[in-house]
Amino acid sequence: MGSDTAMSPKITVELLRQLRQAMRNTKYIAEPIQAYIVPSGDAHQSEYIAPCDCRREFICGFNGSAGTAIVTEKHAAMWTDGRYFLQASQQMDNNWTLMKMGLKETLSQEDWLISVLPENSTVGVDPWIIAADQWKNMSKALASAGHSLVAVQDNLIDAIWMDRPTRPSTQLLTLGLGFTGLTWQDKMTALRSKMAERKISWFVATALDEIAWLFNLRGSDIEYNPVFFAYAIVGMNTIRLFVDIKRLAVPTVREHLQLDTPSKVELSIQTAPYESVFTELQAVCASLGPKEKVWISDKASCALTQVIPKAHRSPIPYTPLCLAKAVKNATEIQGMKMAHIKDAVALCELFAWLEKEIPKGTVTEISAADKAEELRSQQKDFVGLSFPSISSVGPNGAIIHYRPLPETNRTLSLNEIYLLDSGAQYIDGTTDVTRTMHFGSPSAYEKETFTYVLKGHIAVSAAIFPNGTKGHLLDSFARQALWESGLDYLHGTGHGVGCFLNVHEGPCGISYKTFADEPLEAGMIVSDEPGYYEDGLFGIRIENVVLVVPAKPKYNYRNKGSLTFEPLTLVPIQAKMVNTDLLTQKERDWVNEYHRQCRETIGAELERQGRKEAMDWLIRETQPIA
Amino acid sequence: MGSDTAMSPKITVELLRQLRQAMRNTKYIAEPIQAYIVPSGDAHQSEYIAPCDCRREFICGFNGSAGTAIVTEKHAAMWTDGRYFLQASQQMDNNWTLMKMGLKETLSQEDWLISVLPENSTVGVDPWIIAADQWKNMSKALASAGHSLVAVQDNLIDAIWMDRPTRPSTQLLTLGLGFTGLTWQDKMTALRSKMAERKISWFVATALDEIAWLFNLRGSDIEYNPVFFAYAIVGMNTIRLFVDIKRLAVPTVREHLQLDTPSKVELSIQTAPYESVFTELQAVCASLGPKEKVWISDKASCALTQVIPKAHRSPIPYTPLCLAKAVKNATEIQGMKMAHIKDAVALCELFAWLEKEIPKGTVTEISAADKAEELRSQQKDFVGLSFPSISSVGPNGAIIHYRPLPETNRTLSLNEIYLLDSGAQYIDGTTDVTRTMHFGSPSAYEKETFTYVLKGHIAVSAAIFPNGTKGHLLDSFARQALWESGLDYLHGTGHGVGCFLNVHEGPCGISYKTFADEPLEAGMIVSDEPGYYEDGLFGIRIENVVLVVPAKPKYNYRNKGSLTFEPLTLVPIQAKMVNTDLLTQKERDWVNEYHRQCRETIGAELERQGRKEAMDWLIRETQPIA
Repeated sequence: MGSDTAMSPKITVELLRQLRQAMRNTKYIAEPIQAYIVPSGDAHQSEYIAPCDCRREFICGFNGSAGTAIVTEKHAAMWTDGRYFLQASQQMDNNWTLMKMGLKETLSQEDWLISVLPENSTVGVDPWIIAADQWKNMSKALASAGHSLVAVQDNLIDAIWMDRPTRPSTQLLTLGLGFTGLTWQDKMTALRSKMAERKISWFVATALDEIAWLFNLRGSDIEYNPVFFAYAIVGMNTIRLFVDIKRLAVPTVREHLQLDTPSKVELSIQTAPYESVFTELQAVCASLGPKEKVWISDKASCALTQVIPKAHRSPIPYTPLCLAKAVKNATEIQGMKMAHIKDAVALCELFAWLEKEIPKGTVTEISAADKAEELRSQQKDFVGLSFPSISSVGPNGAIIHYRPLPETNRTLSLNEIYLLDSGAQYIDGTTDVTRTMHFGSPSAYEKETFTYVLKGHIAVSAAIFPNGTKGHLLDSFARQALWESGLDYLHGTGHGVGCFLNVHEGPCGISYKTFADEPLEAGMIVSDEPGYYEDGLFGIRIENVVLVVPAKPKYNYRNKGSLTFEPLTLVPIQAKMVNTDLLTQKERDWVNEYHRQCRETIGAELERQGRKEAMDWLIRETQPIA
Repeated sequence: MGSDTAMSPKITVELLRQLRQAMRNTKYIAEPIQAYIVPSGDAHQSEYIAPCDCRREFICGFNGSAGTAIVTEKHAAMWTDGRYFLQASQQMDNNWTLMKMGLKETLSQEDWLISVLPENSTVGVDPWIIAADQWKNMSKALASAGHSLVAVQDNLIDAIWMDRPTRPSTQLLTLGLGFTGLTWQDKMTALRSKMAERKISWFVATALDEIAWLFNLRGSDIEYNPVFFAYAIVGMNTIRLFVDIKRLAVPTVREHLQLDTPSKVELSIQTAPYESVFTELQAVCASLGPKEKVWISDKASCALTQVIPKAHRSPIPYTPLCLAKAVKNATEIQGMKMAHIKDAVALCELFAWLEKEIPKGTVTEISAADKAEELRSQQKDFVGLSFPSISSVGPNGAIIHYRPLPETNRTLSLNEIYLLDSGAQYIDGTTDVTRTMHFGSPSAYEKETFTYVLKGHIAVSAAIFPNGTKGHLLDSFARQALWESGLDYLHGTGHGVGCFLNVHEGPCGISYKTFADEPLEAGMIVSDEPGYYEDGLFGIRIENVVLVVPAKPKYNYRNKGSLTFEPLTLVPIQAKMVNTDLLTQKERDWVNEYHRQCRETIGAELERQGRKEAMDWLIRETQPIA
């Protein structure tokens, strides 16, 4: 992500010594603490974070998108999930213990702390970067064992991080109706009607993508995510936006937000500095009537949550903005479709180019990813990548969230599988696509496992299910073929995708790990990406972004209606990797129909753009399979 | 269940008037309450309950196994799930509102109370029959809206229930090693080692089936469930059993429990009256050291849970007894297999008999169920039924937990589908099987939907999945074929089954509704019972009890191992109802292999028992399908 930390371990002896010193330093805390928790996120609980917020990476070296470090007087441990086991073990030195989440024998953070701490210990954490629900659980678990969790206002990592970057404040981009389908004023009105429905006086927006979506603004404060650092507090007649005030000096932004000439008083935005949210929220809470309620996400920071007195606080798992944002309107769907067509053009070009270049032995993981970025950047309204490209050859493919670095960079060849998981931000939409290819002759085992993954991909993509089904109920469909052969993969099957917003967004997804996901409904967009990983050999993943659409099966039980998925990603799936004997006729039909759509839709755009070589490649790769 | 309430509505005007009077009567409560909650269960949170505990049925008339009634000054509402919508609407008069759980528009009990109660209301409930976790949720939700939940010590239903039956106290049955595989002393030692592992000083057992399993005792206090009213408190050197003392006068019971000659001091059982558990637990808690912890299920009664001071209380979702009981040992598995063979013999006889008798027009739902019971009772070690037989013809089959009553009793015919869901308790095991049959010519639609249900049944039964997979991840497999045609069923797919114990037991199952189920492991036993219900026309369900066994697929990812199911139920599935064109070759092979096992195993037993007509029927019904 934000940093180019190598895959060789970071040496942390001295840093840990300094951190442990800070844990005893009365400059920061009244009494020494026996453990310090370093979560992954920023004050907005973002998944992707700005360099100034990469504190967990700074202390332990591991730079994956998910992980929590805990340092005690004697121990240092880091928890991450199956996507990152290999990467984390390579990036951390032996001062650190890797805690593999999801394995039965792995202690939870709470249980581990209880097992290593001396009696009556104090555990510290920065209240801005721990979510309120996590604070609550951790605090309860520690209390039950006689320990206590305390908020350390000065971040102890920042205290020892000498060259910590400053917080970014990039230029804001305003989005018109042609991209958003709804004005920010419409969105505000809809939000307030949800608030009125539940008798809520105030709503505190803390998630960066929700704020960007609400105001139809984008930024580039965080790499890959077109968001900007801000908070918002919305009342029935008040809108407060907390953001670096310098950013609001631009006339287009002032006009977009109607800062100088608000149309109505209740749509007049009061702006204030980013840092003032804490005191302003205190002021709002001080003026609350006895029955007034304030909505805040239960994933918001503990610091901000606790400003709201408990009697007035109404924490919610998913905010109305999160829910409204997830269901794309017609304009957004059209934009996402356009973005995916452009993205497919770039990938067809890339694969045609790779076929020619690989035999020369000059293409590496890095140069292939660079070429993909270059080709995407030629497309209209390209903004940047939507996440660091996972461009991996052979054994590197088994590192699920691998990112090529000079010292790990392998050359693409005719002998090893190539996995490319990449995507881009266009002003009209966000893409995320994985294709796994072999440019020589795949082995029978590689084809076999690829085909199981394909069967899982199709099982989800073609699934028909009742309206209101939660995505987690579809996860096993993606695994069925792998399970039958004793295989599996240690990650979820899909995540929500934003529209020119975060490539990972809630509240829906397809994963065995969540149960609190919101029901799927038409207009939601998720990824479908089963995989198979053979450590030390190869990785396989087939990922499309798919749109939830109404289905019309034969019957309609209790008039509930049915849903299915429509692929937005239209990039051929390499037939060479498929053992067609393992497919059912229905699955073969699905592949052929998918390739027909690729040829029709992407072919037309390649034709329009006059990209002949990619067109030839597309035609060849979309021949029907028998 | 316990009562023969008719399917015509119970008239509740007078009862509601009396209850509302009691809600204002200072004889029972210091201040009037504005609402009174009547949960379904007893003080042990049993699913099936004794007649003296059928309070919810008494007040509203609905006698299904799940449902909660709430009465306010003006309203009366009853919540139940999809299995019971039809039945509840028929059994309740129009003083009651049926709250259909699982439908989007249905308010939760909390939200409904908040919507109907005047400000600052008080809601009462008997703390013995509400579980601690439910109390907590309800109390929190009400508090957030300015209301309060209070414990009403005198049960207000009992106060107005003039002819309330007394609590049963039946004879206890002792089970030897040949049935249990483990002595109660072994089980106690295993329990204590789990307690030592987690540094727990005391364990309070409140679930009746856990207590029966622990002591290798059975009773018949509750119809269909071979349990007896008791509590147990286990310390590292102490065992206290709370039970009607009269029951312990029997020499075989005294000897079994070693009441007069304990082998070791820590295995000496102190007995005390059932009602004294409250004061005895108070005494135990009064003597606790500062760090001592007491385990109690979070589903135990609020009354008993709150005896344990919060600092000492360690609530758990599943007790170690619940987990140990779920994984059957070799003796129990052997017993369950034997029980299922005997049960299949009785059913083959029944179906052969039905074929002969139905054309005469003399067989009804009730007489068919009676015949099934009579045939089962001829089998060795038969104790009784494991639940009320669901014997339903045509439209009655769409009432998922239907029980035939004189006024609803239909005659079996050649024109309507017959669904029989029934099971028995044998000393060696518990059975639960559903077969759906047509004795004439099923329509194309009946065959089509039956075949989708069969495909779902097979998809679960034949599923191969990684060791440690939770059952809820398999639920969608059972629905896939129905979903593809726009159909579904509104109940879970499977439940745990006890061994000569409750036919429904935790902690595992196969349902979209639970997420907190424990991972499946070899030795667990669950049901596999998808269905399809067409209101007013017919019901279809195909249910086997299946054993979790290791599977040996081609590969073994991360040495995790794989599991699958082995059917214990061996009763032919009616081929006449199957549209074989809709089955895959794999599914046809599954059916033929299943029928081969039925013929081989049940055939041998029919031969041994000399039951010729059933044998002929079995041979004919197990012909391979093409």
